Amino acid sequence: MPMHAYRIWSDVLLSEQDRGYFCKNLGENVLLETRRPPASVLHVAEGDELLMEADIALGQPDPEAVLNAPKLKWLQITSAGYTRYDTEDFRCRAREKGLVVTNSSLVYDTPCAEHVLAFMLAQSRGLPHSLGVVCAPGEVEWFDLRRNCRLLRGGRVLILGYGSIGEKLAPVLIALGMEVVGVRRKPTGEECVPVVSVDRMGEFLGETDHVVNILPDSPSTRGFVDRAFLAKVKKGAVFYNIGRGATVDQEALTEALVEGKLAAAWLDVSDPEPLPMDHPLRLAPNCHITPHIGGGFAGEQRSVLQHFLENLERFSNGRELLNRIM
Amino acid sequence: MPMHAYRIWSDVLLSEQDRGYFCKNLGENVLLETRRPPASVLHVAEGDELLMEADIALGQPDPEAVLNAPKLKWLQITSAGYTRYDTEDFRCRAREKGLVVTNSSLVYDTPCAEHVLAFMLAQSRGLPHSLGVVCAPGEVEWFDLRRNCRLLRGGRVLILGYGSIGEKLAPVLIALGMEVVGVRRKPTGEECVPVVSVDRMGEFLGETDHVVNILPDSPSTRGFVDRAFLAKVKKGAVFYNIGRGATVDQEALTEALVEGKLAAAWLDVSDPEPLPMDHPLRLAPNCHITPHIGGGFAGEQRSVLQHFLENLERFSNGRELLNRIM
Repeated sequence: MPMHAYRIWSDVLLSEQDRGYFCKNLGENVLLETRRPPASVLHVAEGDELLMEADIALGQPDPEAVLNAPKLKWLQITSAGYTRYDTEDFRCRAREKGLVVTNSSLVYDTPCAEHVLAFMLAQSRGLPHSLGVVCAPGEVEWFDLRRNCRLLRGGRVLILGYGSIGEKLAPVLIALGMEVVGVRRKPTGEECVPVVSVDRMGEFLGETDHVVNILPDSPSTRGFVDRAFLAKVKKGAVFYNIGRGATVDQEALTEALVEGKLAAAWLDVSDPEPLPMDHPLRLAPNCHITPHIGGGFAGEQRSVLQHFLENLERFSNGRELLNRIM
Repeated sequence: MPMHAYRIWSDVLLSEQDRGYFCKNLGENVLLETRRPPASVLHVAEGDELLMEADIALGQPDPEAVLNAPKLKWLQITSAGYTRYDTEDFRCRAREKGLVVTNSSLVYDTPCAEHVLAFMLAQSRGLPHSLGVVCAPGEVEWFDLRRNCRLLRGGRVLILGYGSIGEKLAPVLIALGMEVVGVRRKPTGEECVPVVSVDRMGEFLGETDHVVNILPDSPSTRGFVDRAFLAKVKKGAVFYNIGRGATVDQEALTEALVEGKLAAAWLDVSDPEPLPMDHPLRLAPNCHITPHIGGGFAGEQRSVLQHFLENLERFSNGRELLNRIM
């Protein structure tokens, strides 16, 4: 039994089943569902007068409306990325206001790690090509297909934006017999693999077979993978992006593919999304694109609610919240 | 310096570079290269009079010719599978003759394990479909793509023919958060996951999300995955075959796909290879086929030679050989 009945604003698009589950588990708390839900977690919801009455918000509310909501104590963002809240101004005013902000990275770490691993294995086993080939063992084409496969075992991986997804991915890569190095703004020393800061990244780029980009979009990461970065990458390396499209100079990436500097690129994100059909990157050799589905899985919405309910229980009891980002 | 100079018969198709490497490392030993190499390790080479002079054979020689070779002490097969030697008659006569037989499973375990893992992740992330889709976040198709993804984490895997490939695969599946059970003729109790004998398999089939078939072809495994087997499988499970095509009743498999009993099948092997273009299995829904390339990788031939040279060193010094099968 919570000590208070909270008023909880939500813009999450719920199926009837998930709404039933949610309401049943909210107990005495009151759900304020916005009538203008955003099309997806990647869209900004419009400001909503209901937010003005809320103690707690779940979803992707307008940042300005959040800061103006007089009673709001806690915002849980329903995605792992939170670009639109990640400004100096928002952080500062949230702090002044006493607003706690959490995200849903516990929900999305695993599917994102599995998605990038799917990319790595599809590349190393040549799946996009070999799934379409009909040939008999011993034919020239068969030998070519086999020769074009690469072992992940023994390969080196550099993970840019090493964080909670990296922590899910790295143990699997290690079990595969790979060598993993992470790069992040501030290594904690607690990571399960060696992690270096950006100024040491150059030491590793030239020796890395797989560059996995999990960078969020922020002023400091925009265009991080640029011409200079790609010039330092080992010839024949493979580039994967499961972070945000804006962290890559797509013109430079296209060139690196055309020139054969990169053996392939596997992108779940781009800028814009989707890329126009005639975008040079879409037409570049060995560029494989999925439409920003890395975090998706059957039961995703239910998991978002479960994660929120776990935090609501903690919030009600004055305990530390999971995935706190501000 | 080996104590003897052996005469080594080989039918391995070598590039100039690999031949140079091989000869350089053979020392005093004499290479007898057959002039009729088979098209691939999956073909039977013809008998060869050179075999009659050999102390050691490397490749895929004719079983009858092997048994008739008067001086032959040791045969190393260049594949992991060895169906054509795996008969009671061959085993018995090899034993009488004092012939040691080894295979090359150390070479092929890792690529095969990575291939089946590539299948599992391509399936769970919906890659064959989603790599071709252009849609924006928030569109109906986008939600569908996300919902159709499945997490491997938390899923259950049954590995049929649990052996050296299984031992490479299982630790990675465990790192992914999956539950793994193996099935083999004679569990040793030394495996890194629970392994049961065939008579206990039925307890697990109905609870398994992923059935991985690594069975070799032998009289006891032919048609192992039949109608009765598939009837016991959990609805919506996924079937993978990286073993041999003949271990599956392909008509029953086709039906299970058509009826939706299986969500998908991923096959690196079939019977025959390749399947005719109009074979019902090729046309069955959600059936994905690669043309027997699971063991392939750049450097495969060099690895086969390295593995043989390691065993040659052991043979010369009277030590135990790696991958001994008879």
